[in-house]
Amino acid sequence: MSATVKIVRFHEIGGPEVLQFDELPLPEPAHGEVRLRVKAIGLNRAEIMFRNDRYLETPILPSKNGYEASGIIEAIGPGVDSSWIGKTASTVPGFFSLNAHGVYGEVAIVPAAALAEYPATLSYQEGTAIWMQYLTAYGGLIMLGHLTTGDFALITAASSSVGIAAIEIAKAEGATSIAVTRTAAKKGALLKHGADHVIVTDEEDLEARVNEITAGKGARVIFDPIGGKILESLAAAAATKGIILEYGALAPEPTPYPLFTALSKFLTIRAYTLFEVAADPEEYAKARKYIYDHIAAGNFKPLIDKTFPFSEIVAAHRYMESNAQVGKIVITF
Amino acid sequence: MSATVKIVRFHEIGGPEVLQFDELPLPEPAHGEVRLRVKAIGLNRAEIMFRNDRYLETPILPSKNGYEASGIIEAIGPGVDSSWIGKTASTVPGFFSLNAHGVYGEVAIVPAAALAEYPATLSYQEGTAIWMQYLTAYGGLIMLGHLTTGDFALITAASSSVGIAAIEIAKAEGATSIAVTRTAAKKGALLKHGADHVIVTDEEDLEARVNEITAGKGARVIFDPIGGKILESLAAAAATKGIILEYGALAPEPTPYPLFTALSKFLTIRAYTLFEVAADPEEYAKARKYIYDHIAAGNFKPLIDKTFPFSEIVAAHRYMESNAQVGKIVITF
Repeated sequence: MSATVKIVRFHEIGGPEVLQFDELPLPEPAHGEVRLRVKAIGLNRAEIMFRNDRYLETPILPSKNGYEASGIIEAIGPGVDSSWIGKTASTVPGFFSLNAHGVYGEVAIVPAAALAEYPATLSYQEGTAIWMQYLTAYGGLIMLGHLTTGDFALITAASSSVGIAAIEIAKAEGATSIAVTRTAAKKGALLKHGADHVIVTDEEDLEARVNEITAGKGARVIFDPIGGKILESLAAAAATKGIILEYGALAPEPTPYPLFTALSKFLTIRAYTLFEVAADPEEYAKARKYIYDHIAAGNFKPLIDKTFPFSEIVAAHRYMESNAQVGKIVITF
Repeated sequence: MSATVKIVRFHEIGGPEVLQFDELPLPEPAHGEVRLRVKAIGLNRAEIMFRNDRYLETPILPSKNGYEASGIIEAIGPGVDSSWIGKTASTVPGFFSLNAHGVYGEVAIVPAAALAEYPATLSYQEGTAIWMQYLTAYGGLIMLGHLTTGDFALITAASSSVGIAAIEIAKAEGATSIAVTRTAAKKGALLKHGADHVIVTDEEDLEARVNEITAGKGARVIFDPIGGKILESLAAAAATKGIILEYGALAPEPTPYPLFTALSKFLTIRAYTLFEVAADPEEYAKARKYIYDHIAAGNFKPLIDKTFPFSEIVAAHRYMESNAQVGKIVITF
């Protein structure tokens, strides 16, 4: 009788409850792959979208899920450097399709190219809360937005792990962060985690508040994973020649393009995911160095909102959908 | 009794017929301004939009109109270099508001900064068919799009004066132009004027044809003054990391932002008008040199579709609205 392992899969599209624990034979890594003994999993909004079939790729059922795990490499496939065995590392999204390599499980098969070691000062929980957030925020704000001292950065969905990372990056660059959140519930937490300003859209007019904060200049860099109707307000709040980075599609409604506002202010709307950084070895190397250096310097500290044991991954997905979190939701073993 | 001149103004928003000839006192140039004795006027789509109150600025009634005229400088205001007097020049859009300085008239008061001499080999008609088209196309394709050898440039509204200029620029840069036109009526003319490929959207699927022409790569640079529904097809026809330059708003309907397609291909949508080039002295100097050099080399030749006498400016506007033209519609004196 060969060993089996628990792998989370969904056999139909739907809510958190479609995630189930399948007992599967211990998988072996193929060429270029490794098997990671998973110690922690970082949850991402993309995985909820994928489970709902609202993501960039369509699940092939039954489907695995999950971009980010940390753990110990316990087996390697042909063509992989044997020095990986026994090392602690986490997986970097952007190097694999969720259909090919979802990491929700006691073990995960991933391409060796998707592995990155992380500073030993970090726990497993923190180690799985690095790449999606810092790489996404780096690519948007630094690689494409060229954020720098004196800039105003407007950050929507600011309490997400990527939002908090963006706030940290703005601070590290000497820019002023303006965090956008829907209700007043998270205002205190956002200020505590470094936001220079917080706009509560249920209570305040976004454009008016940005104008007030920026003395009428508007925000030069806007970082938004929502899309939909908010794009018009974001364009109205943008500086002349500003750039709006769209890095997600959380809004269920279609996204209107604010053509007249964009023409008046020469706006750039740039759609972006971290797959773009991952696909460019030079940019990826720069991004990794930037992130490592800032973690080492203490400027970036992965913020864990809440942990759930592996057996409660359904509850963890449900919790993410409640939007109560500030920072990363992590599964522990 | 002082001299009067005929100036075209509109006293209400509406169709071509609202343009009327007002007999007004000969205007005197104020500080920094000149009075141009108008010899030809180049019509622009922006002026139709302005007359309909669908433009970026709202007319203050009664309103003048018109960005482009060529003629002879006959008077200068304080602070203007006196060597301008007697010179032939044309006006460059981007340096004045239509509310302040519409050029439809026997004379036009314009800022001296908006004047540019042009090669003496050009007629008045050609001299007023330079700046809107070449400066707009230069700013979009070269300054922002960095069009170069081997690129595919997709050009909508290709039979407009800006569209033809864009085709000429693509050829000068060694790029392949793909002209987009609605009906087959202008296909022959577009090929004759240098388009490498023509897509007739009433008869052909835009995305499929672009894929065929580009061997599946898509167009890296897309240059579009229409907006509205076509933006989704343009995004579908774009190359990975492609850029769509939106430089107008001809479509009456709202413009949907193609978020998922943009995210999959890391697309940039950049809104742009030539006011951006005009506002940057360094870029403007580069643009002028580029345009002069290519006119001198014979690569750019202003294409006049049809001329109308000044007295028939209403008919000329009506003709532009019929969309029958290929190239510039010019008013003569």
